Amino acid sequence: VKRLAKARVAVVGLGLMGGSLGGALRGRCAEVVGVARRRESIEQALGRGLIDRGERELAAGAGDADVVVLATPVRVILRQLAELGTIVKAGCVLMDLGSTKRQVVQEMQELPAAVQPLGGHPMCGKEASGIEAAEATLYEGCTFVLTPLERTSPEAIAVGKGLVEVVGARAVVMDAERHDRLVATVSHLPYALACALTAAVAASAEEDPTAWELAASGFRDTSRLAASDVTMMVDILLTNRAAVLDAVGDCRKELDDLARLLEDGDEEGLRGRLRALRESRTAWGRRP
Amino acid sequence: VKRLAKARVAVVGLGLMGGSLGGALRGRCAEVVGVARRRESIEQALGRGLIDRGERELAAGAGDADVVVLATPVRVILRQLAELGTIVKAGCVLMDLGSTKRQVVQEMQELPAAVQPLGGHPMCGKEASGIEAAEATLYEGCTFVLTPLERTSPEAIAVGKGLVEVVGARAVVMDAERHDRLVATVSHLPYALACALTAAVAASAEEDPTAWELAASGFRDTSRLAASDVTMMVDILLTNRAAVLDAVGDCRKELDDLARLLEDGDEEGLRGRLRALRESRTAWGRRP
Repeated sequence: VKRLAKARVAVVGLGLMGGSLGGALRGRCAEVVGVARRRESIEQALGRGLIDRGERELAAGAGDADVVVLATPVRVILRQLAELGTIVKAGCVLMDLGSTKRQVVQEMQELPAAVQPLGGHPMCGKEASGIEAAEATLYEGCTFVLTPLERTSPEAIAVGKGLVEVVGARAVVMDAERHDRLVATVSHLPYALACALTAAVAASAEEDPTAWELAASGFRDTSRLAASDVTMMVDILLTNRAAVLDAVGDCRKELDDLARLLEDGDEEGLRGRLRALRESRTAWGRRP
Repeated sequence: VKRLAKARVAVVGLGLMGGSLGGALRGRCAEVVGVARRRESIEQALGRGLIDRGERELAAGAGDADVVVLATPVRVILRQLAELGTIVKAGCVLMDLGSTKRQVVQEMQELPAAVQPLGGHPMCGKEASGIEAAEATLYEGCTFVLTPLERTSPEAIAVGKGLVEVVGARAVVMDAERHDRLVATVSHLPYALACALTAAVAASAEEDPTAWELAASGFRDTSRLAASDVTMMVDILLTNRAAVLDAVGDCRKELDDLARLLEDGDEEGLRGRLRALRESRTAWGRRP
């Protein structure tokens, strides 16, 4: 395990997350190598100064790296982990940025003993995707979850924490199960709600197209996540299915409770509930 | 009915919407009179240059006005309409900015024949409320629904359209029923979803407070409306109850459909549905 400042870091996948990570790491480690299948992604990443070198093959990019970070959709990460076991060198810290962690950590468990695996999930992003949307400041101020395995050495965890710090984020260490349960509610549920809202407005607009015209900032923000990258989201939903279904079920109950207060015309009950929720939401907004 | 440029306009209620309207109208009509019960609201509105004159009594503010605009919560509007019948002068155009229109228009029907009633609903706002949040540019570029009654004269409608234009908004004329049905889906449903999401995250955080720490930009935007002013929202929900319950029911079905695709592991079905919704949402985002 090599200290980050002296390490060659390979970032696999040059989309929004990978491109941004390259930009944030460049100059803070020995070399940033970008790995992407599409030649145009590498050219753009080089042109925008997000990487030092580009490679189109996993072996060429990751073989001589001290740290490898997988920034691809979750199910691609699962396949690449299986491949990388025979590619990376001994002592390599093998991280990922996948939005679900249970299956990733399970797959990491199969890696050769000489490899140091470390799950990661930066809690940032935007609905735009691709290298075009990448920016070196994307990680600044975000919470970056690390999910080490029992086998992961303290030195490897330190390298992971160093990387998180260098890109301006705040490391939070927890196990993969707990991570997946929490993000199902705070992250995957909002996506499902944004999609359901968009579907409801689209159905209403089929009867009366003026619906789209009346949709304003409330619809804009509440539905924003429905514009997220579909390949990424399908992988997330399918690799966190049980927890997402639980979160959707819980939220449905909350929605039903609110609807019941309205249906009953229980004005004081409704007001009290909405006040408490307003307080929760504004308290969260005020947190440091 | 007097042309807007020569009219004295009374804005009743100096919160976010009324204060902003005053600021947008000032200098574009003979006088902007702000009416508010709280002395501090009037002082702030005067201090920030949002009104020309302030009055604390409805009669003093609205009695000599050519145009009166009610910018209070919907059920306060209903009460003030009943009072204003004996206060306003003949030919006065009596408008409101309430977020639901069916009950408002019903109450307007009871006004003396010499009064010209015109329902209005500007599709803008923000979750911050109060005169502190007011800004003269709030209405720029927004859709501003007008719901005239059968008795409303073409001259009065023209005054209303003139006001909409002067504050930088785009007038859309429709009947109150249709308005209420459409906004239930595009505006009140997003509020209900934001509240349900906040409730789900709060419940999850009771078991594991780290939930609040992991909540990021996805939660922030999807839950933003839960911080809306509760008095305003309770009035909206209670005066549009049937349509809101229908919209919540429709959205719940959409959510159940998505959950079923996920539960069944129907990857192609899920992907196709999410792609179509992404296309709807991005097409809306690109509209002029």
